[in-house]
Amino acid sequence: MARKRRQKKHKLGKAPGALIYTGDQVIDKVQVQQIDFNETDITVTDNPDLETLKAARESNTVSWINIVGLHDVDYIAAVGQAYDLHPLLIEDILNIHHRPGYYDDGAIIAMVLKMLTPDKEDPVSNVEQIAVICGENFVLSFQERPGDVFDPIRERLIRPTTKIRSRKADYLAFALIDAIVDHYLVAIEEFGEKVEELEEALMEGKAERILELLYKYKRDINFLRKVVRPVREIAVQFEKTDVGWLDDATVPFLKDLVDHAEYSAEAIETFRETLNDLLNFYHTQSANKLNDILKVLTIFSVIFIPLSFLAGLYGTNFEFMAELHFTWSWPAFIGLEVIIALGMLYFFRKKGWL
Amino acid sequence: MARKRRQKKHKLGKAPGALIYTGDQVIDKVQVQQIDFNETDITVTDNPDLETLKAARESNTVSWINIVGLHDVDYIAAVGQAYDLHPLLIEDILNIHHRPGYYDDGAIIAMVLKMLTPDKEDPVSNVEQIAVICGENFVLSFQERPGDVFDPIRERLIRPTTKIRSRKADYLAFALIDAIVDHYLVAIEEFGEKVEELEEALMEGKAERILELLYKYKRDINFLRKVVRPVREIAVQFEKTDVGWLDDATVPFLKDLVDHAEYSAEAIETFRETLNDLLNFYHTQSANKLNDILKVLTIFSVIFIPLSFLAGLYGTNFEFMAELHFTWSWPAFIGLEVIIALGMLYFFRKKGWL
Amino acid sequence: MARKRRQKKHKLGKAPGALIYTGDQVIDKVQVQQIDFNETDITVTDNPDLETLKAARESNTVSWINIVGLHDVDYIAAVGQAYDLHPLLIEDILNIHHRPGYYDDGAIIAMVLKMLTPDKEDPVSNVEQIAVICGENFVLSFQERPGDVFDPIRERLIRPTTKIRSRKADYLAFALIDAIVDHYLVAIEEFGEKVEELEEALMEGKAERILELLYKYKRDINFLRKVVRPVREIAVQFEKTDVGWLDDATVPFLKDLVDHAEYSAEAIETFRETLNDLLNFYHTQSANKLNDILKVLTIFSVIFIPLSFLAGLYGTNFEFMAELHFTWSWPAFIGLEVIIALGMLYFFRKKGWL
Amino acid sequence: MARKRRQKKHKLGKAPGALIYTGDQVIDKVQVQQIDFNETDITVTDNPDLETLKAARESNTVSWINIVGLHDVDYIAAVGQAYDLHPLLIEDILNIHHRPGYYDDGAIIAMVLKMLTPDKEDPVSNVEQIAVICGENFVLSFQERPGDVFDPIRERLIRPTTKIRSRKADYLAFALIDAIVDHYLVAIEEFGEKVEELEEALMEGKAERILELLYKYKRDINFLRKVVRPVREIAVQFEKTDVGWLDDATVPFLKDLVDHAEYSAEAIETFRETLNDLLNFYHTQSANKLNDILKVLTIFSVIFIPLSFLAGLYGTNFEFMAELHFTWSWPAFIGLEVIIALGMLYFFRKKGWL
Amino acid sequence: MARKRRQKKHKLGKAPGALIYTGDQVIDKVQVQQIDFNETDITVTDNPDLETLKAARESNTVSWINIVGLHDVDYIAAVGQAYDLHPLLIEDILNIHHRPGYYDDGAIIAMVLKMLTPDKEDPVSNVEQIAVICGENFVLSFQERPGDVFDPIRERLIRPTTKIRSRKADYLAFALIDAIVDHYLVAIEEFGEKVEELEEALMEGKAERILELLYKYKRDINFLRKVVRPVREIAVQFEKTDVGWLDDATVPFLKDLVDHAEYSAEAIETFRETLNDLLNFYHTQSANKLNDILKVLTIFSVIFIPLSFLAGLYGTNFEFMAELHFTWSWPAFIGLEVIIALGMLYFFRKKGWL
Repeated sequence: MARKRRQKKHKLGKAPGALIYTGDQVIDKVQVQQIDFNETDITVTDNPDLETLKAARESNTVSWINIVGLHDVDYIAAVGQAYDLHPLLIEDILNIHHRPGYYDDGAIIAMVLKMLTPDKEDPVSNVEQIAVICGENFVLSFQERPGDVFDPIRERLIRPTTKIRSRKADYLAFALIDAIVDHYLVAIEEFGEKVEELEEALMEGKAERILELLYKYKRDINFLRKVVRPVREIAVQFEKTDVGWLDDATVPFLKDLVDHAEYSAEAIETFRETLNDLLNFYHTQSANKLNDILKVLTIFSVIFIPLSFLAGLYGTNFEFMAELHFTWSWPAFIGLEVIIALGMLYFFRKKGWL
Repeated sequence: MARKRRQKKHKLGKAPGALIYTGDQVIDKVQVQQIDFNETDITVTDNPDLETLKAARESNTVSWINIVGLHDVDYIAAVGQAYDLHPLLIEDILNIHHRPGYYDDGAIIAMVLKMLTPDKEDPVSNVEQIAVICGENFVLSFQERPGDVFDPIRERLIRPTTKIRSRKADYLAFALIDAIVDHYLVAIEEFGEKVEELEEALMEGKAERILELLYKYKRDINFLRKVVRPVREIAVQFEKTDVGWLDDATVPFLKDLVDHAEYSAEAIETFRETLNDLLNFYHTQSANKLNDILKVLTIFSVIFIPLSFLAGLYGTNFEFMAELHFTWSWPAFIGLEVIIALGMLYFFRKKGWL
Repeated sequence: MARKRRQKKHKLGKAPGALIYTGDQVIDKVQVQQIDFNETDITVTDNPDLETLKAARESNTVSWINIVGLHDVDYIAAVGQAYDLHPLLIEDILNIHHRPGYYDDGAIIAMVLKMLTPDKEDPVSNVEQIAVICGENFVLSFQERPGDVFDPIRERLIRPTTKIRSRKADYLAFALIDAIVDHYLVAIEEFGEKVEELEEALMEGKAERILELLYKYKRDINFLRKVVRPVREIAVQFEKTDVGWLDDATVPFLKDLVDHAEYSAEAIETFRETLNDLLNFYHTQSANKLNDILKVLTIFSVIFIPLSFLAGLYGTNFEFMAELHFTWSWPAFIGLEVIIALGMLYFFRKKGWL
Repeated sequence: MARKRRQKKHKLGKAPGALIYTGDQVIDKVQVQQIDFNETDITVTDNPDLETLKAARESNTVSWINIVGLHDVDYIAAVGQAYDLHPLLIEDILNIHHRPGYYDDGAIIAMVLKMLTPDKEDPVSNVEQIAVICGENFVLSFQERPGDVFDPIRERLIRPTTKIRSRKADYLAFALIDAIVDHYLVAIEEFGEKVEELEEALMEGKAERILELLYKYKRDINFLRKVVRPVREIAVQFEKTDVGWLDDATVPFLKDLVDHAEYSAEAIETFRETLNDLLNFYHTQSANKLNDILKVLTIFSVIFIPLSFLAGLYGTNFEFMAELHFTWSWPAFIGLEVIIALGMLYFFRKKGWL
Repeated sequence: MARKRRQKKHKLGKAPGALIYTGDQVIDKVQVQQIDFNETDITVTDNPDLETLKAARESNTVSWINIVGLHDVDYIAAVGQAYDLHPLLIEDILNIHHRPGYYDDGAIIAMVLKMLTPDKEDPVSNVEQIAVICGENFVLSFQERPGDVFDPIRERLIRPTTKIRSRKADYLAFALIDAIVDHYLVAIEEFGEKVEELEEALMEGKAERILELLYKYKRDINFLRKVVRPVREIAVQFEKTDVGWLDDATVPFLKDLVDHAEYSAEAIETFRETLNDLLNFYHTQSANKLNDILKVLTIFSVIFIPLSFLAGLYGTNFEFMAELHFTWSWPAFIGLEVIIALGMLYFFRKKGWL
């Protein structure tokens, strides 16, 4: 549930653009990794000093600067200043509860997304905000916790002949977003398996904890929806940006990204519908079970009520009840009871309850 | 259910544009059929070599190259290269879980659709992805399994005087899509018959397995909707393409195709509504049955409860109960019981329960 | 229900534009009526030969050619050729299951609609497809069965001073559509009366067959909606057509037609809402009735259960039950029972159940 | 309900533009009031002759001609002709079941609205159609029954220094519409009070007649919605008209009118939501009451059923039942019964039902 | 609830633009605070005279004039006149029930909003209308009651080096709106905590007063929605205004404001969905509880009904019942009862009810 809270109160009354980290510090020290590459060379620098960071902007290589840990507000602000980021943008980077969004000032583009690292148990539990800022020859990425979904990209960068090495910062930014969206697809797929398991359990009538699970999944899917849906719009705007440095060759990849984002959004809508259908199925199943219970109750009651009444009648202590004293009375009485019972059963059969 | 799964995980971490077949190999060897035709001549070549395939692009005939089997990724890539297809497009052709979509680079247009071969038992079970790529004088079609809905087109191609022989690749591409959409209509029609059967069974109260069927049909119709709905958009974009080679005479046929796609989408919406109405009807019917059951229970209980109580009273063993000892007591008691029973029946009639 | 079926299968595998009549032949011979008129003269020709039909196109009168019966495909094709109709348009005329639609090729406009002839019993049962094609000086109308809603127009045509005589083909086409839409309004009105009757029956609790009627009306209104809704769009497109021969003086009439079509569509939406409300009302009424039934059951049970239990206690045959042997025991016991019963009644009153 | 009916049948088969009054005559004679005014002078003429009416059009004063009673079709037609109104417009004025709408031919604008005169008992019962036609220096208003919401406007007209006297016909037309919309707001407010009363009654559980009221209010609000919603569009189109005579100073007032119309439409949507919420609340309350009833029934039954059974056991007449004959049997039996009863109570407490 | 009422009736029949305060006077005297500032100087004047107020408009400082109390209509009108406000705008300022809205006449912009001062107990109880009017070098703000959310802004104004001091009136207006929206976020956050508490209580089955709370929250969230949603549109229009004096440097802040407004609106939609889900969960929980109750009732009834019947049979007083007189009869009878009870239990286990 923690993901729902927003520590906005800390900000109340501060000037707009005031830089405040709205999360809880999770690592001791900011970790920075700077990768400078072009088609022929690649340099990886861990925790470079600020001067190195700044120099990257002027170099003729593409630089990817990945910053992990947002608690050191001054450091982030310094990086922001070095790359001419607007204070409001830095504020958004630091506000880990920000909505996914796209910003474009004609020189750089910035994208704020949620990064999902799904695990088998709970596809949507592991979520973190990531900000990707892309300029002509650099990409900055800001995240809160160590560990991300970019390792395959790092590996491709290191290998000399990969396409990513021969392309520019825009393609790198695309690759980062694409990796994030690919993990949405994994989360959705795992979610789908959980929903199918639930569906099967429901169809087989194994209704343990189903209601709680249904509501949990509904909440999860709504959360996932809020994470995934804005990405389509972000990808569309990225594709349509009029910054000068966007390579035409990147556009088909961005179109493909839009496609994946759309697929994700549609899959989520499908799951929402499925969950609603399952909930309705559950309700109908419950109602049918209730009908069955009440049918059994009614059949038993209605058969035995008149029989018991008759027995009660002849259990009264009236003195003058001639019919009690014939030898055939008891068998005749039993016969009467049997006839009444059979009549009732016939009535229920006619009603279609048996 | 198999159609819902997506084997995306195989791709995680691969570079965008990496070519991976996401299905399971279903035939041993890729089967290719190349048909070159113009108004006067037609040549059918089975399994042509790659050179023949490439040559078709430069010839002055229209060529239809139908490729069955997508597991041989290298072969598909080679064909793609021969026809200058973008790697991302080839990736989409190989990803059999792709959403229906339309692509246009100004020189060729590509359409990815789902092909339905409905059978009587299950109108939506037999589904396969097909990619149709159309250039100035060629049409490429990629499918996964042998068997398709194009045999009537092949027959018309072979007959010398048909309209299709005198037209260009754009009309052939239209004809393929049209054949696919025609089979959607058949599937929808068969679906409609199944829904009507269900409706009749429900109206007659023959409620066996109805709930399961209702939910199955809902899932089926949702699946069908995802298959059919994008086709309208595809047809619209095909009609509005600004590739140079689109023949004006084909446009009315494309408009007609849009119309059929719209008809299909509307019919599907109608079935969705009908299924929801039937589900509601089922619920109401169940609730009415419950009311009937409880009415019977209540009538029996409420009539006999006071009667039994009175019998119980006179079954007590109190020593001094003068009323037990008159000769007329027993008949009087029976008379009292009858009066109470009649009173109850009158009460129920007044309540409108009888 | 027959109206829902679509005999599409007959067409499967035929070339697009192949001419096939999708209905069942209802009359022996095609009936044609040709009316040529201008402000001063009028000629009515029944079953003209094809030459006369063609001549009308070149004459300086306005000609209305009404063709009844679509089974003679060759004849329809010949008429179509005489008036330069596109094969796909003729295909649509012959396909009596076509969606209402508008076609415009800059020279002629064609409109396909459903014609309703409502009768008191079932406002939506009597439905037939009609195609109206309008050129500069002619109107062709194609229908399947004899009998239509155009007799008042024929009468106005015969009278010499009517406005319709002084106007052109566009006004005649408008008049035909207007007559069709006027009958939609009648159907809607009669439908409204049926819904009001149902509403009153429901409010008075006369719930016989109500559920079946509700669902029948829902189906009917959905059918009506599919018939009526496209007409607004058709009228709008007619009004906005850029064919050269549209008279400015006809435009206000077309605007008025749009207005009527909108009114119809809105009225239908209102009925849909009303039917849903009535269904909900029915459900609530049922639920309330169930509550009433169970309240009566509970009151009776809860009052008599303890009373009967006490009687049962003193009906046991234990030997040493001193309290049975006092002379005042029996009246005291009866008194106790009365007190318990009153206590229960007080409890129910407090609960608000009495 | 009468407001729902539409006497369209009278028109069936008539030529479009045929003038027919679709209401029932409510006054003997048409009443006309002509007010000619400018900043300095004002003349009020009751029932002027047709010449005077016509003259107003050419005068240099602003003229407001209010016509009450629509049954004299010839008179209305004559007025229409005097002011060059299109026959279709006159037809709409006479059709009192017309949808609210806006018409603009570049010289005059015409607005058809519903006028509400809410009373305490039923805010929506008193409704009447009004047509307002505005030209450069005249306003025509057509209504069916005497009595309207314009008296404050008449008073302001008579007072010499009011703004309305110094302005033109466009402002007068605005003022009429504004008065109508102000009464919508009153109706909405009174409606809101009724809904709040219902809400309070529901919350306090005083559920008498609530279901009927809820459905009545739903119908009323739907009716109100159809009356009020089109007015926003009418006001917007009035503001954006390109007739030459619209005074720029009137535009802010029209914008304000749009605002009021929007406020009304939003308030109505809010009430619709509230009514749906109340209906749901009612359902939930009923379901809870049912649960309570069944809980009481179950508690009583489940406690007494085993107790009665035991009493029944010892009421059997078996000869050899040693346990009947001990002196402590009866108290022991009573003790057993008490223990069972307490056990049951404990069970219910654990279940959380007590 | 008071916030829902609208005292419109006071206005009925008044001329449009007539100035009427629609609230209840809450303070004795209008309180005015005038702050004139530029980068170097700041002057705060409490309750300035009208001349001072007017002079601010011509000065070369930025002036913020905050007016508290709207009952003195003449004073407000005088201020309005001094600043050339349109009478309709002043009418809107005085009508405290006005919808949030944006007005722009090219020289000034005016925004009407609702100001929320959430407290812990009820996040939406404390609401007040505020009008913000911004010109080239002045901001007017009108509110009804003393106390607002602007104190942090006043503090920042007084401190000499803050950004707000170096900027113009447009930034000040932004800062006011931003402070209001920040408090929406606080209200939403507190609302979220209340909803989470409710959710937890519901999941744990502590269902006390839950239904009332759910409906209260639904009403609250609907109210909040009406307050918050228009602000997005207001911010968008502020950003896009074409008044000449809007500083480009303010635009990013306005974009950020749009973002916050969107976040608020989305959060509200999420809560609406959550509340609906909770209501459904509550219903399902109730239905399950009902099933449990009826299951217990049925199990007890169905087990004991036949047992009691048998006891009743042998409680009859027939003279010739041989089976009563064997010594083993009683234990055999008890044995039979036990066997029947076990049979019933087995039946329930098979049904899955135990």
